[in-house]
Amino acid sequence: MSDFVCIAEMGPRDGLQNESVSVPTGLKLDFIRALSEAGLEDIEATSFVSPKWVPQLADATELWPQLPVGPRYSALVPNMKGLQKALSVGCHRIALFTAASDEFTKANINMTIEESLVGFADIVAQLRESASGSWVRGYVSTAFECPFSGKIEPDKAVSVALRLLNLGVDEISIGDTIGVASPHEVSELTKALLAEIPKEKLAYHFHDTRGTAIANVACALEKGIRIFDSSAAGLGGCPYAKGAGGNLATEDLAYFLTREGLTHSVDLAKLALASLPVLGLLNQCPYAKAQVAVLAESLQK
Amino acid sequence: MSDFVCIAEMGPRDGLQNESVSVPTGLKLDFIRALSEAGLEDIEATSFVSPKWVPQLADATELWPQLPVGPRYSALVPNMKGLQKALSVGCHRIALFTAASDEFTKANINMTIEESLVGFADIVAQLRESASGSWVRGYVSTAFECPFSGKIEPDKAVSVALRLLNLGVDEISIGDTIGVASPHEVSELTKALLAEIPKEKLAYHFHDTRGTAIANVACALEKGIRIFDSSAAGLGGCPYAKGAGGNLATEDLAYFLTREGLTHSVDLAKLALASLPVLGLLNQCPYAKAQVAVLAESLQK
Repeated sequence: MSDFVCIAEMGPRDGLQNESVSVPTGLKLDFIRALSEAGLEDIEATSFVSPKWVPQLADATELWPQLPVGPRYSALVPNMKGLQKALSVGCHRIALFTAASDEFTKANINMTIEESLVGFADIVAQLRESASGSWVRGYVSTAFECPFSGKIEPDKAVSVALRLLNLGVDEISIGDTIGVASPHEVSELTKALLAEIPKEKLAYHFHDTRGTAIANVACALEKGIRIFDSSAAGLGGCPYAKGAGGNLATEDLAYFLTREGLTHSVDLAKLALASLPVLGLLNQCPYAKAQVAVLAESLQK
Repeated sequence: MSDFVCIAEMGPRDGLQNESVSVPTGLKLDFIRALSEAGLEDIEATSFVSPKWVPQLADATELWPQLPVGPRYSALVPNMKGLQKALSVGCHRIALFTAASDEFTKANINMTIEESLVGFADIVAQLRESASGSWVRGYVSTAFECPFSGKIEPDKAVSVALRLLNLGVDEISIGDTIGVASPHEVSELTKALLAEIPKEKLAYHFHDTRGTAIANVACALEKGIRIFDSSAAGLGGCPYAKGAGGNLATEDLAYFLTREGLTHSVDLAKLALASLPVLGLLNQCPYAKAQVAVLAESLQK
């Protein structure tokens, strides 16, 4: 099995979308450039969402054409209007967001899962027609537990993932949106997913809200998963989920993978510095454990 | 295999010994009472060390007789003078501290490993002669990697553990003192330890400096280990190790064990509150992930 692990960087989109301060476009570009120079090859850069919903990402059409050359970028697209905006600036790598719980999609995107999938079918068809080389990622959030309706059975998450694949989505990212899962659940869900879906099409999006994310990564790696979402400095969480917060930090993920003898594209020393200007603007201290350790070590040298 | 996991709480000793502020004895007692009420049954309460070395624990002889009834308490004893102090206040459950690296013991306790073990032989003999029902724990720190001499081979850690057992030590706690290890190393060392030592005598003391502690716990649990050290709120680290910091937080450990379907004695909702007065005095925010999540949830109710 491949020793190379793909890291999908969520910092610029998922990391910033819920901050009370809007990061200026220039500083976002510096952040993304620093992430690229730290080796990140897959970056979800922004969301073509209504500025009324997410004012922090209102600069998506301004940002996209200025993205530094190098990484593969993608952007979240909530609806057909978002797709039109994305296409207008040459973005044809998109991500679609749904969940394994109707209660969650209703609270989050004001639709049932079914309604979201119907909309996605049109978006994917339009994208494929409009652009060659397009690529679509589908998020299945609250795949383990919903903050409103509780535990989600693996079958439910698998069925939504299969529906997305049938729509022509290229990659599915399975989310522990409120950061509650532990390895036996990851083991169970991964087995169920792999019975239906090739592992190359599967990613996990763990939140480290209760400190379990790296143990969950370890479990998923054992089962053959090789794509993980994370956010530099652990920036961001989910604004709609009770008690949510804490994307898995890319620094913690990169440290863990290296120490486990797996390969990836990230230079941890560079990455530890990449988020500092944004953290400073947000008036936050670095709070990814491996980031703090790397910064402390470099100060002691 | 037993589903019950013993948690050895390190907060009052390891957690406070390196803080710039000395916590007043009364507040320490309140902290320990709160830990006890949160269900912690094994608490390392203090260290009978020279007040010149560790002024934060200078109140050990004053603290010990006032400890609230309930938990099993122990105290670190660095030398014969410390043992005399411990015995003078009725403490006969002690912990001895050495390492798997001479470079580390020299920097930390100004002795080689061998010199530390020679001293321990006298201490254990004196303890057994002086008190019935005595109990001794031995720490093997830097069992995976030393901040001065690098990687430690499993054989080295096993040989120190065996020497401690031959001295009559009842339990061995194996420490990842600088918080660098990842599961494949835990797997390798645990196999080597279990080839020589019954699992009931083994504990792990993981630091979460780089976010790997819970993944390491998961690995050790799989191999049959059922005793883990942790510190409420993740208080404390190791003052002598470069880049060190971050005991595994008891909150994160308790959350993980519960979610994995294992049993333990801790009430997480109570534990999340237990360290707040001490954190306040130290001017620190709660920084254990599961603690923050529990506090956030309780505020939203």
